[in-house]
Amino acid sequence: MLPGAVFVTTSPHKHREAERILGCPLQRVELDIPERQGLDVLTIAREKAAAAVRQLQVPVLVEDTSLELAALGGFPGPLVRWLMEAAGPASLARILNGFSDRRATAHCVAILRDGEREWVGEGIVPGEIAAEPRGVSGFGWDVVFVPSWGGGRTYAEMSAEEKNTRSHRALAFQSLGQKLRQE
Amino acid sequence: MLPGAVFVTTSPHKHREAERILGCPLQRVELDIPERQGLDVLTIAREKAAAAVRQLQVPVLVEDTSLELAALGGFPGPLVRWLMEAAGPASLARILNGFSDRRATAHCVAILRDGEREWVGEGIVPGEIAAEPRGVSGFGWDVVFVPSWGGGRTYAEMSAEEKNTRSHRALAFQSLGQKLRQE
Repeated sequence: MLPGAVFVTTSPHKHREAERILGCPLQRVELDIPERQGLDVLTIAREKAAAAVRQLQVPVLVEDTSLELAALGGFPGPLVRWLMEAAGPASLARILNGFSDRRATAHCVAILRDGEREWVGEGIVPGEIAAEPRGVSGFGWDVVFVPSWGGGRTYAEMSAEEKNTRSHRALAFQSLGQKLRQE
Repeated sequence: MLPGAVFVTTSPHKHREAERILGCPLQRVELDIPERQGLDVLTIAREKAAAAVRQLQVPVLVEDTSLELAALGGFPGPLVRWLMEAAGPASLARILNGFSDRRATAHCVAILRDGEREWVGEGIVPGEIAAEPRGVSGFGWDVVFVPSWGGGRTYAEMSAEEKNTRSHRALAFQSLGQKLRQE
């Protein structure tokens, strides 16, 4: 990672996970940056990174995550955090009980930015939403998201090591790391 | 209404409905003002009104609307417009098929603002979400919202006259009108 970069997130879970994925400690800064409605996850992450650099005047690492439900045309997407706050992960499973299509895509964008340059990593994991929450590890909607490569298990039914090798967030940070090494 | 006030909305449906409720023509200005995530409908409307006055330098009328599902702890609230864009009103009915609680609250805030003063009207209508879309009038989620006073009919099964006398938007504009007349 860029020396001196701080990870800007309000989520201690994301912070711990990013440290595990990257295998190094990251300084966390809790800035509550307003996010606009109606934007895709890449645009939200870009705006967040730019705002964080302006405020902090140091290199920053940010991420934004989206969960796109096929049955709902991609909703809630980046707005999934508000569904989690309002109703928790079990609601995701129940929302889809009225639909036959339970497919979902987990999409993460990680951005490293300093005053001039920006590196973008993206991770996309197709999967589906379980009929009910299963498992105890992870956080957020890990208990209901079944990645296509997981043999039917939710993220929360895996060890942190397994999830953090192949999750949407792991792929985004790995992709970001490759971009940096290519410089 | 305040002389010279323009109605700032991107929705021609809301424009026509506001004219019917108020019984007078309103000049519409289509400004796409960014709205922040995670705010209540009153705060969103206030920020929109302030931004519109700054941009236009004339008195403005704005409204924002929220649909709060009891089974989802109030979600999607003001974010309902993104669910409508992504999946349409039938999705609201199907989302709740996994829940026994179909209660919903329609909540509208209408604000008139000039450079110095602000008048706020609020309209709240309790109701529920129909099992499937019904009716042909109105727009947006009118086909699935059954107001508590409607004898089981959706907004879309009523005449525009009936809806526009008692709807969440009608109540908000009526409340705003009262505030103005009290001056």
